[in-house]
Order: sequence, then structure tokens, then C-alpha cells
Amino acid sequence: MGVEYHVAKNGSDLGNGTKQDPFLTINKAASVAVAGDTVIVHEGVYREWVKPKNPGFSGWRRITYRAAEGEKVIIKGSEQIQNWEKLEGSVWKAVIPNEFFGEYNPFKEELYGDWIVYNPGRHLGDVYVNGKSFYEAENFEQVVNPVVKTEVLDHWTNKIVAPHNPEQMKYVWYAEVDENHTTIYANFHNYNPNEELTEINVRKCCFYPEKTGMDYITVQGFEMAQAATPWTPPTADQPGLIGPNWSKGWIIEDNIIHNSKCSGISIGKEISTGDNYFTKRKDKPGYHYQLETVFAAGKIGWSKEKVGSHIIRNNIIYDCGQNGIVGHLGCIFSEVYNNHIYNIAIKREFYGHEIAGIKLHAAIDTQIYDNRIHDCSLGLWLDWQLQGTRVSRNLFYRNNRDLFVEVSSGPYLIDHNILTADYALDNHAQGGAYINNIIRGKMVHRKMLDRSTPYHEPHSTDVKGISVVYGGDDRWYNNIFIGDDELEGVGTSHYHGYTTSLEEFIETVQR
Amino acid sequence: MGVEYHVAKNGSDLGNGTKQDPFLTINKAASVAVAGDTVIVHEGVYREWVKPKNPGFSGWRRITYRAAEGEKVIIKGSEQIQNWEKLEGSVWKAVIPNEFFGEYNPFKEELYGDWIVYNPGRHLGDVYVNGKSFYEAENFEQVVNPVVKTEVLDHWTNKIVAPHNPEQMKYVWYAEVDENHTTIYANFHNYNPNEELTEINVRKCCFYPEKTGMDYITVQGFEMAQAATPWTPPTADQPGLIGPNWSKGWIIEDNIIHNSKCSGISIGKEISTGDNYFTKRKDKPGYHYQLETVFAAGKIGWSKEKVGSHIIRNNIIYDCGQNGIVGHLGCIFSEVYNNHIYNIAIKREFYGHEIAGIKLHAAIDTQIYDNRIHDCSLGLWLDWQLQGTRVSRNLFYRNNRDLFVEVSSGPYLIDHNILTADYALDNHAQGGAYINNIIRGKMVHRKMLDRSTPYHEPHSTDVKGISVVYGGDDRWYNNIFIGDDELEGVGTSHYHGYTTSLEEFIETVQR
Amino acid sequence: MGVEYHVAKNGSDLGNGTKQDPFLTINKAASVAVAGDTVIVHEGVYREWVKPKNPGFSGWRRITYRAAEGEKVIIKGSEQIQNWEKLEGSVWKAVIPNEFFGEYNPFKEELYGDWIVYNPGRHLGDVYVNGKSFYEAENFEQVVNPVVKTEVLDHWTNKIVAPHNPEQMKYVWYAEVDENHTTIYANFHNYNPNEELTEINVRKCCFYPEKTGMDYITVQGFEMAQAATPWTPPTADQPGLIGPNWSKGWIIEDNIIHNSKCSGISIGKEISTGDNYFTKRKDKPGYHYQLETVFAAGKIGWSKEKVGSHIIRNNIIYDCGQNGIVGHLGCIFSEVYNNHIYNIAIKREFYGHEIAGIKLHAAIDTQIYDNRIHDCSLGLWLDWQLQGTRVSRNLFYRNNRDLFVEVSSGPYLIDHNILTADYALDNHAQGGAYINNIIRGKMVHRKMLDRSTPYHEPHSTDVKGISVVYGGDDRWYNNIFIGDDELEGVGTSHYHGYTTSLEEFIETVQR
Amino acid sequence: MGVEYHVAKNGSDLGNGTKQDPFLTINKAASVAVAGDTVIVHEGVYREWVKPKNPGFSGWRRITYRAAEGEKVIIKGSEQIQNWEKLEGSVWKAVIPNEFFGEYNPFKEELYGDWIVYNPGRHLGDVYVNGKSFYEAENFEQVVNPVVKTEVLDHWTNKIVAPHNPEQMKYVWYAEVDENHTTIYANFHNYNPNEELTEINVRKCCFYPEKTGMDYITVQGFEMAQAATPWTPPTADQPGLIGPNWSKGWIIEDNIIHNSKCSGISIGKEISTGDNYFTKRKDKPGYHYQLETVFAAGKIGWSKEKVGSHIIRNNIIYDCGQNGIVGHLGCIFSEVYNNHIYNIAIKREFYGHEIAGIKLHAAIDTQIYDNRIHDCSLGLWLDWQLQGTRVSRNLFYRNNRDLFVEVSSGPYLIDHNILTADYALDNHAQGGAYINNIIRGKMVHRKMLDRSTPYHEPHSTDVKGISVVYGGDDRWYNNIFIGDDELEGVGTSHYHGYTTSLEEFIETVQR
Repeated sequence: MGVEYHVAKNGSDLGNGTKQDPFLTINKAASVAVAGDTVIVHEGVYREWVKPKNPGFSGWRRITYRAAEGEKVIIKGSEQIQNWEKLEGSVWKAVIPNEFFGEYNPFKEELYGDWIVYNPGRHLGDVYVNGKSFYEAENFEQVVNPVVKTEVLDHWTNKIVAPHNPEQMKYVWYAEVDENHTTIYANFHNYNPNEELTEINVRKCCFYPEKTGMDYITVQGFEMAQAATPWTPPTADQPGLIGPNWSKGWIIEDNIIHNSKCSGISIGKEISTGDNYFTKRKDKPGYHYQLETVFAAGKIGWSKEKVGSHIIRNNIIYDCGQNGIVGHLGCIFSEVYNNHIYNIAIKREFYGHEIAGIKLHAAIDTQIYDNRIHDCSLGLWLDWQLQGTRVSRNLFYRNNRDLFVEVSSGPYLIDHNILTADYALDNHAQGGAYINNIIRGKMVHRKMLDRSTPYHEPHSTDVKGISVVYGGDDRWYNNIFIGDDELEGVGTSHYHGYTTSLEEFIETVQR
Repeated sequence: MGVEYHVAKNGSDLGNGTKQDPFLTINKAASVAVAGDTVIVHEGVYREWVKPKNPGFSGWRRITYRAAEGEKVIIKGSEQIQNWEKLEGSVWKAVIPNEFFGEYNPFKEELYGDWIVYNPGRHLGDVYVNGKSFYEAENFEQVVNPVVKTEVLDHWTNKIVAPHNPEQMKYVWYAEVDENHTTIYANFHNYNPNEELTEINVRKCCFYPEKTGMDYITVQGFEMAQAATPWTPPTADQPGLIGPNWSKGWIIEDNIIHNSKCSGISIGKEISTGDNYFTKRKDKPGYHYQLETVFAAGKIGWSKEKVGSHIIRNNIIYDCGQNGIVGHLGCIFSEVYNNHIYNIAIKREFYGHEIAGIKLHAAIDTQIYDNRIHDCSLGLWLDWQLQGTRVSRNLFYRNNRDLFVEVSSGPYLIDHNILTADYALDNHAQGGAYINNIIRGKMVHRKMLDRSTPYHEPHSTDVKGISVVYGGDDRWYNNIFIGDDELEGVGTSHYHGYTTSLEEFIETVQR
Repeated sequence: MGVEYHVAKNGSDLGNGTKQDPFLTINKAASVAVAGDTVIVHEGVYREWVKPKNPGFSGWRRITYRAAEGEKVIIKGSEQIQNWEKLEGSVWKAVIPNEFFGEYNPFKEELYGDWIVYNPGRHLGDVYVNGKSFYEAENFEQVVNPVVKTEVLDHWTNKIVAPHNPEQMKYVWYAEVDENHTTIYANFHNYNPNEELTEINVRKCCFYPEKTGMDYITVQGFEMAQAATPWTPPTADQPGLIGPNWSKGWIIEDNIIHNSKCSGISIGKEISTGDNYFTKRKDKPGYHYQLETVFAAGKIGWSKEKVGSHIIRNNIIYDCGQNGIVGHLGCIFSEVYNNHIYNIAIKREFYGHEIAGIKLHAAIDTQIYDNRIHDCSLGLWLDWQLQGTRVSRNLFYRNNRDLFVEVSSGPYLIDHNILTADYALDNHAQGGAYINNIIRGKMVHRKMLDRSTPYHEPHSTDVKGISVVYGGDDRWYNNIFIGDDELEGVGTSHYHGYTTSLEEFIETVQR
Repeated sequence: MGVEYHVAKNGSDLGNGTKQDPFLTINKAASVAVAGDTVIVHEGVYREWVKPKNPGFSGWRRITYRAAEGEKVIIKGSEQIQNWEKLEGSVWKAVIPNEFFGEYNPFKEELYGDWIVYNPGRHLGDVYVNGKSFYEAENFEQVVNPVVKTEVLDHWTNKIVAPHNPEQMKYVWYAEVDENHTTIYANFHNYNPNEELTEINVRKCCFYPEKTGMDYITVQGFEMAQAATPWTPPTADQPGLIGPNWSKGWIIEDNIIHNSKCSGISIGKEISTGDNYFTKRKDKPGYHYQLETVFAAGKIGWSKEKVGSHIIRNNIIYDCGQNGIVGHLGCIFSEVYNNHIYNIAIKREFYGHEIAGIKLHAAIDTQIYDNRIHDCSLGLWLDWQLQGTRVSRNLFYRNNRDLFVEVSSGPYLIDHNILTADYALDNHAQGGAYINNIIRGKMVHRKMLDRSTPYHEPHSTDVKGISVVYGGDDRWYNNIFIGDDELEGVGTSHYHGYTTSLEEFIETVQR
């Protein structure tokens, strides 16, 4: 029933991977483990990007990566830097040869891609003292004299709000990269960076296969942090700190995931179906490229048989710049439950139209339940081709906005959730049933008559047709509205040209 | 190399089909001929709906149906009626038991379906004296006193025009169908119907398989006429007087085809991908159902491998109520050349948005050349998903409008045609190259910003994306404008976001 | 929620189909009913082939055809004949004009097609007195002097057995068809056929759409009988007395189905994917054509989205010549339960390798349970691509053989069945789990090393690979063997190269 | 029409890539060039693995990488080593920190995978002095005393032959890799390695995208050499020194390609469709996994629309260990012409069943013509699913065997070739036409009755069916046999059950 490989900080990759003679790196185990095998990682900090080399075979013949029971295992995308030189005041600098970063230097890589609207060009690098992340300054001067704001703009609501953690804004860095070296300037204030745990992020991911199709892998019980992940719009490659990269049947459970520059867990698309072509080619609307991703994905096997069906449960995800969980297309038929997600995009270093605690596109038959989502600029955003999706028993609080449902024909079901934000709901879709929710804040309903999106055969990725969002055809039953805000545009009308009973509607989703 | 079966009017279906012992019916031959065989039909009138029972195997191992060399063979959808009783004046009546019609009684079947806008409910029946068709009257009174108009509306141009043949309007019929009998009243004027060749149409088709997938069949050298074909919009089953019914690789050549109630040759879609659901269900726009047909067709194999690639050449087609040649989806990769098409929809008994000498949807990589098209209310209409299509060296004259290109992203090529109508061109598409044409009449160009249509991988039915028609990105070179009318909205701009050279453009189409 | 149409023997097809003004024929209702509508048929015998013209839309928006509650509704494929002339002794003859039969004359149509091995060329006609079917004689002489056998060969077991009903063999007919007439001679013994209910079968089917894609139809509460159905091997068109003809989501329930010349209920394939090409073309093995049907079907949408998912329950099916239930490809994801099936192929007028109470090919994820199957030459035959199939709690008795599982890679599950035949089981497959069955008779296990068959992605029609049957890798637990016969070749070994736990195995099937 | 980027040895990656301010690395240009752009590389040696980051858009809107006109540009997978220490005699050693190799150390990576039969476990490293490659020794002792053989086994013909270059065998290396260092021992004989151009291979590839779908790229005019490419069987990832990695529409022209450890140009498959699972899992035959790759590839878009259609022309390819050109599945619809291929697998360091000058699987509609192929252990091997393939006007000489055609149903065409080997032809297929060839040596014909392989719709990747190779059905016309050897098993019989005319046959291929 499979081999058990062990990895430990006192191991060697020349060893045989037994408990007695463990490997040193998780990647060594990842290169030998095949379907049915288990990789048990023992206590310690592993600074590597784990790239599974082989897939599992089925739900019962997986490859499992797990922290040894009762042991604390941390996988970090960062490296510790200890050669800081003091410059002036509390400003220090570190000079790092570019070879240190290999082909990917986060202090050179820019935040880039479709639908970034505020602060594109920020770098993917970060500096951490004792695990706390810094802000990137725009120039050396700002490092010396950090700008601490007392007001920031919430782009979603277009309101001025207090920053989430003003104290953090004092800690800033600025980097210069020349032909050979990367020089990082940082203001450490009272810390001596050479005496604290001072880290910079170096690797793009912590646990993410380079190749697609690495199916049926379980990742259990790790803490994973400090990856220099890029911006992940639905028209681009979507790597997260951890994720399956267009595979099927992953289980990501019992992990603590934090400080991903952009997205924490990605169950999104891969690169060949489109990679920021709007931004790169500037030749047609991003919306058109988004549509092309759907059909391009169809040609590389987007279907229940090939991708998705992931389980993401019992994870704690926080302090990510863009998304706690993200995913276009790859998220189909998945279950996301019992996760605790907070502090997403709340540092507000950059902004674009792809930010939320959970942001999914084409979440066909995906179930999102029992999650706690708070302190996000937007809690949950379900965009495009929402069909057969159920959002149930989630608790939202202290978000600038709680729930956004966009350009979809449904059917979908929103039940037993608690939405407490001032701005509770944006509904730019149709075919939804909202039942037994407790809703406090404002709700907005909009038609989308200028954008067609696909709808699908029931419980399938097969495209059945294309429609704009006429709006309406929603069902509202038994919700408790406790807020004092307005209710806009909610009604019942026809979608797909027919109206069903509520009972039938719910069965359609649940089948 | 295959068996040769013979069919003759003195044959017997109990015979063996040899030249010495021929079959009596073409259908008998059709039930035994398999891939590689040839059916040779000898002189005479065959009143049957030929339904091929077996497909050919490939372009070289076909089943060929042909008229014996030098012999006149006619297949008719009609039966001769000789029991007319004189009623009053020149009005006669014939009483026919309903069993005579079997399951399909054209005098009861109504003109029905999506996009009929004028005179829905007309019946599919017709009466002919010596081959000349009558008009259907609205009641018995009109049979007694026929209404002969001197002016009729051309719906395309919204202009009053002279009727094509006012004399023909005097010949009218009206039918009543009860539980057991069909009674036809007709005004024969100076004719005694029992002494002339008086026929009524009875069968839906002359040569059309009941089942799809009857690939690689050749039909050569027949005259075929007087079928009670139904209205054939792109969202319905599209049977014509003759056609392959969602098969691949037919050759229809050297035939004379006329007096089809609606369409002559159909290379269109079959029924399971949609059948007038807008009209039947009244629940969403026909445009949505049209989009659904494209994806539904994809699921039943719409591709170069499975359907289309027909050759339609050297036929004479005239006196059809809707289309000389029609076809949605099934027309891909076909060649239509050297046909003579005239008097289409010129009787003006009914009207809808699916009428033209040739009306094709999704004519991907279809070549239309060297045809002569005249005396049609609209000459050539290419609608939706025009891509890789070439229209070359066709001659248009005496049409109310010559050419209509609609809601497509191209690329397509219109070259060396002669357009002589007052209303020469409607261009509601983009991505066209118009080269070396001689154009006399008015040209209109329109955007279509409210309707998305699919575009495809080059030379493929694979959907690549969806776009509205922004208009523009057309190329006009070396055309000779000889008319005195206005030129509206022609320009050059971007489509799909980029502009190519003309040379590249044409190669894209021709590849 | 939809219109209710009524049909009654005192109705008129010129009526409006209300309860007060019902239609006369079910077909009239079938031509107007659209998704959501119900057709209620009132007491009486309906001699018509019901051909649904429109599909339902979904499991909740079906078209339902049902017998009015408490009323006896019979749909017959036969017509009553009352013009018998007495010839000599108890032999009578009826002369029928060929027009009576239309395009399909069962007394001329022959039993024909792939894998018929005994008595091909028998005709599809039949004669019934008071519902009891006759035997076809080989010539007039045998009509005069019927041959009553006391021993017949059971082809499955190659043993001589007693005929099922020797008395029935006395009742024989013989027919001659010339250019214009069909003459039937029959020996009625003591009956005067003009004074009894004497019928001949005329129509191919009782309830079967002519077109594919007529999804989501319910047929409930009818008795249907006496159809001249043709031989239905897996390489041909497979019409049954009733069936969906390559549609999705039918429910056939609470019906009594009997006296189908070949198959009763068909959930099989349609014609375009192959139609007896081995027999017609004689150019390569039937086995190759069978493989081609699988891939050809894939191209016309063979998938969970498009076909199958039928429910067949609570029907009584008996006295069919070939199969009680048959189906290649179209049977996927279906449930067949609580049916009572008996007297199938027990008249033994012909024989071929496609005969059983239930005969399914490619029954992916099909569930067969709680059926009672007895007095069949073979009870249940699952052939090719058995995967995810479960056979549970069925009772088999008085069959010549009970269960045959052939050329499949599994996994499949056979549990809680009672197999009582002398020849209980033929296992020419692998990957089966046999659990908690009670088995009395002989069991045979064979490898099939010369025939590759496809296996599929789990719970999908997507082909994953091809394999011969190495045999083995079966699991046997907790079965009770009560017979005295030998057990051949049963063991446990590897299939698909790996062995799973029983628990996992069963979950794989049940998922 | 696109940007022109320049790369030069005096450039900087911080520059802007203009001619005046060129980039330093080709990879920098590859990261910014988008569809329509051109990358011009100036004189010099570039030691990098070029990984295109963006695809072109179409055949006319490519990304072109080319050597500046008249300038010599070399891309090497190797690095120069100059710190050799003399040990004893002519043996030197170099100690290299493992970081030097990054994640891929060729001196640790083993030759591994399906169908290796001789010397698996050899390493992928190599040592070169002045461009000449060494042999790997089995231990240090063999470095000191190299084994120079005078006879070697040709595995194809099972004959003892003279080694290709005995002198080369004296130059040997042996490496040891520990936790931190790689130590290479080599016998340089009269050379002082620190004074010559001494290189070791380091990188897997010279020009190969890491991601699939990098379509429409041209690579022109480079010399590329010394890559540590792995073994590339049809069931694995198939990287070559250069190749498109499952993309469409590459042009590889006018290059000099040599010293690839395994394969030179790869137009083969990517990793997710299978990666040596037979070797890794040991659970079922490699042949089964090979079949699974075909269906798995179908699911990720194996089709004319998505992959293949490459042009490989005017290249010189030599000194590769496994293949000059290799490719399973990705090679469809490609043209391979006017290449000069020699010295492939002639060093004989290892052997397996995937070695040839050109080795293609599933070369549907691929054209191979005007190539010169000599001094290979096997010249051209076309394996599995050969259909629509044409091999024309190629010249074969000094190969141990010239042409091998295996387990295919055809049709394919072999015309106007000159085959001069003692062992001219292995024909384990059917459906071939051999016309106008000049053939000198032995020809062997075999049936393959135990292995089914797919055949396809004409000019398509759609699977039509599966068949074993019955053999026969070949056509031989107008060939000139000039040898003295036997002719075995050549005949004409049926394939796919029918025989066509030669004319039709050739048209089928050429269409």
C-alpha cells in the first residue's frame, strides 16, 4: 500500500528516505514518491519550493505530504538575511548577489497584469522581521522618512477608511537591482535586523507543481508562508503560495497559510490558456480574452474528469495581498469548508478588480460552507459562470464588503450565511436563491446587458449557451434583514426564459 | 468496385435490380445499395421520397445515384389528381381521403417557426397545372374571385415593387381538412384540370435521408420538383427538397431543382440541436436559441470530420418559396459553384428573416463561386460565423438586394463579383476583404453591438471566443463602383484587436 | 406548469386536446406537447406508433405521457384483420394490399444483422389470436401440417431442452409478398379467425421517437404490445417496442410490455454510429465495427450530459423474441429496477449472440436491482465496458443461464443476487466484486486475450485506455454456494496492474 | 508590425533591447517579446537555456528568434570548466559545488525510463574537449585505464560491428556526487584541460519552453549544442535540446544542432499525459500506458488546431545519443525536410527501443522528405498510428538499418527514397504504398496480432477505431531492388477490410 518516505532536518538527500535515514528536502521525496506513497515531514523550517514530480492515481491511491504528527513543520518562500549594514538612523541595507535569486528575483519582478488599477509596478519582494511584513517605499527617501497614513481609500466602497494597522506602515523597504546585485534598504526602527529573524521572500511558491496534471495529492498539517506570488487575474497563469496547478483531486487541509504577496491557495487556471494578453498585447478587451480562456480551457480538458474536485478544509489563511483563495476554471466541483480567512488585501499596497478573501470564477458545482471570513476588503467574490454553486453557513464580519456575485446565469444558492458588512451584497447576476440568510448591510442589484457570459449543461463544464445578465429571476425566502440600509433592485423575474419552483430550484443546485 | 443497381418504370421491387431485371422504385435500390455501389435510374417520373438507407464510406467509396445517361428522370414530391369536380365558374374541387397523405398532409401543415414575420400559417400544400404553381387563397371566396395585385411590398427594401408574375396570381386554391378528408378548391380558369397535368404536392422531400450520418452520397442528373418543404430557420430542423441531413461529403450536381415550397437544397442542421424552440416555448430570444444550436451541434460532432464538405455544382434551381440553397452549420467546408439560381421567394406568399437565393449560417471555409443568381428578393445572405469564406466571381442581377453579410467576425473574402442591384450590399459584419468587385447599388454598413456571435480557430469549428460586431476592419481594394447611390459606413479599422496586411488576410482565408 | 392534453377514443385530432374536447390520437398530442406539458390518455386500444416530436427540457420540466388514472390504455403495433378466407382444414388466408403496411411491411422485412447465427431470414411479422402469437412456418406445407417439436436446442448451454410451450407450435403462419399484395396463410385450428381477436403486427414500434435527442420524456401506465421490432445487435440501430432513441432522461414506469418481435425496451444506440456494417459490407470483423461504434458515438456526444440517465422501473416485460431490455451506449447512468421480466427468447424462433432478459453493452454506472428475471434463455448479459455497474438484489430462476459478464475491465459489483440456474455465471471479464450472492449452478471464468475493449475515466464515458481481458482481479466475499456444480477459474489477481481493498473497490463503484 | 529586440554579448538585461542598447541574454528578450516581435541575436556564445515566455498568435504573427545575418551565434547547454587538478598520468579532476547545477545536475541524473534495455543508469552528464565528447566510465579505474573496444553490438541487427570512432573511446570521465560537491575525473590524454576549451554539460535544454502552448515561434540560424537531455520514450515527457513542448506552428530552420545527450529536436509530447509510468509503477505493460497517452492527449487538445504543424527544415543534426528528431503525438501535420542527420546513437553508450535518426509516433499527415540520413544505428522509425504520412526523396546510407514502420494501419506512402543498408526495411504495419524507391538490402515483414493500435478519421486525430496489424494490404510498384538479400512476407491483401486502387490510395494520403 505504498512507501512511506521521511524528511527531516538532519537527513540527507543521498539517503534512502526511511525513518532511520531520512531525506533532507521535501523535494527529494517529491521526486521519488509515486501514486500510493506518503511523505512525512519532521519538525523544522524548510526553505524550498516543493514541486511534486509525480501525480497520484485516484482518490484512494494518492500521494500524501504531511507534517509528522505533533511536529511543527514550516515551509517558507523566504530566506533569512543576516548581513545587513547600518546606513543612517534606523535604515539598514543588504547587498545580495543576483545569483541568490536564480531566475526569479522578487525585488525586480513587478506586480503586473490584467485589471490592476492601483499601484501596478509594485514589486513582489517583501521584508519580514520576526514574521511581520514591511511596506514597499517608492524611493530611498521614503525609507528614511516613512509615510504613515491615517486614512486610506477602500476601492470597493469608494470610502475613506482607517488603515488596518497604521503601526506597520512605519516598516518600509526599497530595493535597487543592477546587473549583478540587489540592494535592499529597510527601516527597522528599534530592531537590529542581524539579531532578529529577518527574512526576505525569494521563491514564487511554497508548494506548487511546475507541471500541470499532478493529480490526487494531499497536503496536510503544514505552516506555509512568505511566498513572492504574482498577481493572479482570471486571464493569467494563477500560481498561489500553494495549489495544484491545473490538476485534479487535491486535498489541502489543516494548514496555516499566510504572507503570500498575492494569493494564498490557488485552484485556478494554468498559463497556456492565456497569460495577461490584454496587458501584453493591448489589442482587445480583457473581457474578450477572459471568454477565450473558457474555450481554450475546454480544449485542454476543462471538465470534471480532468481538473478540480479539490477539497480545501480546516485551513487558516491570513495576511495575503490579493486573495486567500483564488481560482478560475480549476475550482470546479470543489469543496471549500471550515476555513478561517482574514486580513486579505487589507494592507492595501495595491488594488485591482481581482481581490477578495475568496475569489472564484466559473465555480461550477463548487460548495463553499462553514467558513469564517473577516477583515477583508471584500469577503467572497463569485464571478462568471456561477452555476450549481452553493454558499452556505459562512460567517462574514468586518469586511468592507461581504459578498459579490457577478455576470452569471445561475442557478446558485446562498443560504444560512451571516452577512454583517455595511455593504452586504452586490448582485450583478441572475438565477440566485437567497434563503435563510441574516443580512445587515446594503444590497445592490445590477443588470449587465453589455457582457455575455457562458452557461453550461447542468453539473458539467460543457457550454450550453451565452447570455447577458438581464437580471432578476432571483428567489428570496426567509431571510432576516437586520440592517438599516437600502435594498436595491431585488425582484423576481425570468431567466433562461422560465421560472421554476423553489423546491426544484434547490434540487437543481444540490443534485 | 461496387454493384450497379438499375431502376426503371417497368421494373419490380421484387426483382434483383440488374439492368435486365430492374427495380421499380429508387427507394428499393436505396435500401440495398451500400458503400461503393451505384444506382442508375432510367427514364420516367418517380413519385417518391428517396430516403438513402446506407452511407458511403469515403470520397472514393461513395453511393452514387444518377439518371441514366441521356435519359430524363424526374423525382416529384407531388401526385397527380384527376378526380376534380366542377363547382361553379372555373372553380373545381377535389376530395381526397386523408390516408392518401399518410402522416404528413401539406394542406394541413402550416408554415411555422422562428423569424416568420409575414403570413405565418400559410399551408405547405400547393397545386400545379402543367407544372405552374398556384397561390393559396385565404378562403373559398378568394378562390372564386382571385385577388390579383399590381403592387407588392419588398420586405428587404421596404419598397413597393411590381409583382413578379401578376398573371400567376389568378390561379388560386383553398383547402379544408376534416377528420377524414381533405377538400381542395381551385380556380383553374380556362383549364379543365382533369385533362391537364394537375398535381398537388404531397411529400416533404424528394431526396433526403430520414436519418443523419448518411455520408458520401452523389446525386446526379435528376430533375426534382414539387416538394412540400417546411420553413427552415437556423434554429430548426432544415429539410430541403434535397439534402444530406447532417451528413458529410455529398455531391449534388447537374440537377434541375424547382418548386420547393420553402427550400431547394439544404445543407443545414438536423432536428436534435433545436427545433423552433423560440416559437414553441416563447421563453427566451431566438437569438439565444441560435447560440445554443452552435454548442449543441458541437456536442453531436459539428466538425470537419463529421459533417459538411459538400459539393453543389452545375445545378439549376428556381421557383422556391424561401431559399435556393439553405444551411446552418452543415454547410461547412463546402463548395457551391456554377449553379444557376433564380425566382427565389419572388412569389412572395410569405416572408421572414431567412429568405435568399442562398442563405447560409456558419459557412466556415465555404467557397461560393461562379454562380448566377437573379430575380431573388435577396441574392446571397451569409449570416453568423462567416469565417474563411470566399465569395468569388458570382453574378447578381435583378435581385431586390444582392448581398447581405451579417454578425460575423471574419475573415472573409468577397472578390470578382458583379453586384448590380439598387441595394447592393448590407455589411453588418467585420473582417471582410472586398476586392475587384463591380458594384452598382447602395451599400450599407452597420455595427451590431448587442449580439455576440462565436468566432473559431482558423479552418476549424472549434469555438475560440465570442464577440459583438464592432464593425470596421474591412479592406476595400480595386473595386469598381458604377452606381449612382450612396456609400454608407465603409471604412477600415481594427477587428479582433489587430490589423493584418491584405496579403496575409487573403492567405488566411485561402489556406 | 404546462398544459394538460387529453386523448380519448371519442376525440378528434381537429379538437383542442382539452378534457372536454380531447384528441383522438396520441400522436396528435405528441406533435403539440412541449417541455412541461402532460398528455393523459384515456381508456381504449390505440393502434399507432407514438413518435414524440418535442423533447422535455430537464428532469423537472418533462413531457409526461400517461394512462389516465384507473383506465386501461393499450398501444398496439398490430392491426386487427377480419377478412380471412378459409382454404382447407383449419388453414385460412388473408390478402392485404401492400399500401396497408406503408413503407414497412413486417411480412417482407427479414430478421437480419450482425451476430445472428440461427434462422436469419425469418420475417418480422407475426399473427396473434386473442393475443397469443403464432410461429412462422417455412412454407405453406408446414402451415397445413405444423411441426411440433418435443426437443429444442438451448444455444447457450448447447443442451437439448424441452420447448417452453409445445402447444403454441401448432399455430403457424406463412406469408407471400408480391408487387401489390401480402398474402398470409395461417393455421387457426379450432378458431374462426374472423370471430376472434385476430391481429397481425404492422408497425415497427409502439412508442419510439423517429429523431434522436427527444430528452426528458415519461411514459407511464400503458400496456404496449405486438410491435414488429427488428434484430438489435450493438452494431446497429436498436429500436425497441418502446425507447428513447438516443435521448436523455426518460422514465419508463408501470407499463406492461409484451410481444415485441425482438426487443421490448431499448435504451441503446442510434443508426448513424453504425448499422450492421459487418453484415452489409463483409469487410472486417464485427468486433472492429463494435469498437468503431464507441468512438463514433463519442463524436455525436455519448456522455452523461447527452444520453442515458434513464429510469426503467416497475414494468412487466414478457414474450419478446430477443431482449426484454436492450441497450448499447445509450444505457449509461441508468437505473433499471423492480421490473418483472420473463419468457424472453424462449419461443426460440431464431438465435444469435445478442439474446437475454436484459442485454446491455457499455453499461457505465448503470444500476440494475430488485428485478425478477425468469424463464429466459439467458437472464442478464452485461457485455463490454462494464464499469461502475452494480447488479444487486435481483432474483433469477428457470433461466437456461442466469448471468453473463463479458470482455470488461470493471470495476463492477454483483451483490445480494440469487442465481439459481444450472449454469449460473459466465465471467469473461475482470475487476468484479461478487458479494453476498446466493449461487446454485455452474460458474465459468475465461480470459479474453484476443479482444481489446475500452475502459473509461471513473464515472465518465471518456475513454482512458484499451485492454484485453487478462482475467482475474475479482473479489469474492460472503457468497453462499448451494449448487453441486463445479467452480472454474475463479481467483483474485491483478487488473489494471494494481489491487485495491474491497472497501475502496466498492466505493469506486458506488461513488 | 512588431518590435525588434537585439541581444548581444556586450549588452545588459537592464537595457531596453534596441540595437544600440541590446539585452545581454536571449532569455531577457524572451521574457518581453510578444506576438509579432523579433529577437535578433548577435555574435557570440550564449550559455543559457532559452525559455520562451510568450507565444506567437498565428503563422503571420509569430515570435521570431534568429541569429543576426552573417553572425555566428552559439547557444550551449554547457559551461566551461577551468579548475581541473591533475591527479595521476593524464587523469584530472574538477570539484564543483552542487549549487553550480541548480536543481538539475546531469552528473547525478540517470538515464531512466521506459524501454531502455542496455545500460540504464548511465548519467546525463558529459565532458567535452574542444567540442569532442567523452565516454562515461563505470568507475575511477576505467578512467585511469580506458577500455577501447574494437567490436560493438548493433542491437538492431544483433550483429557485431566496428565502433564508429574507436579513438574517441579513450576519452572517459567518471563523476561522484556527494551532499555538497560534484567531482569529475577525466582522462584528457595529451590535453591540458585548463588550456583547452573544456566544457561539461549543465542544462537540460538549449531552447525549450518550460510551459506548453508557446505557439508560433521561429528559431533560425543558430548553432545549439551540448545539452543534458533525458531519455525520451513515447510514454514520457520528451524534451529535446530544442523543441516546442506541446505547442503549435514552430519553424526550426537553418540551425546546426549537435551533442544532445539524448534527442536533438523534439516535437513530442509533454509530461501530464504520462511520464514513464511503466518504469515508475511497474503495474502494467508499457504498451498499455502508451495507449493511455493517446487518449490522455486527446483530452488536453491533441488536434490539428492545438499542436503540431511544425516545419523543420535545412538543419544539420549530428552526434546525438538517442534521436536526431523525436516526437510522439506533437509531430502531427508537420513537415520535416532538407535536414542532414548523422551520427545518431552511434556512440552506443546506451540502447533502448526508441533510437533512430528520426523517431516519430503518431505522425499523422506528417511529411518527411529530401532529408539525408546516414551513420545512424537506425535511420527512420515510424511507430504507431502512421496515417497520411509521406516519406519521400530521402537518402539513407551507412545506417545499420534504414527504415522501420511499426504497428500502424496506414495509409502511408514511401516513395522515391534510396535505401542502401544491408537491412533496408522492417515493415510491421499495413496499408503502405512503396513506389519508385531504390532498395538494396533485406526487407522484413511481420504481423502484430497481439497489439491493437488506434486508427483515425482521415486527416484528423479523432480516433475512429482500434486494430491489431493483420499485415498485408501493401502496394509495391516500380521499386528497383538492387540488393542481393531476401524479400520476406511482402504481398497485397486487405486492410480495414477493403482494397482501394493505387490512385485512390495515394490521393488519400496526399489530400
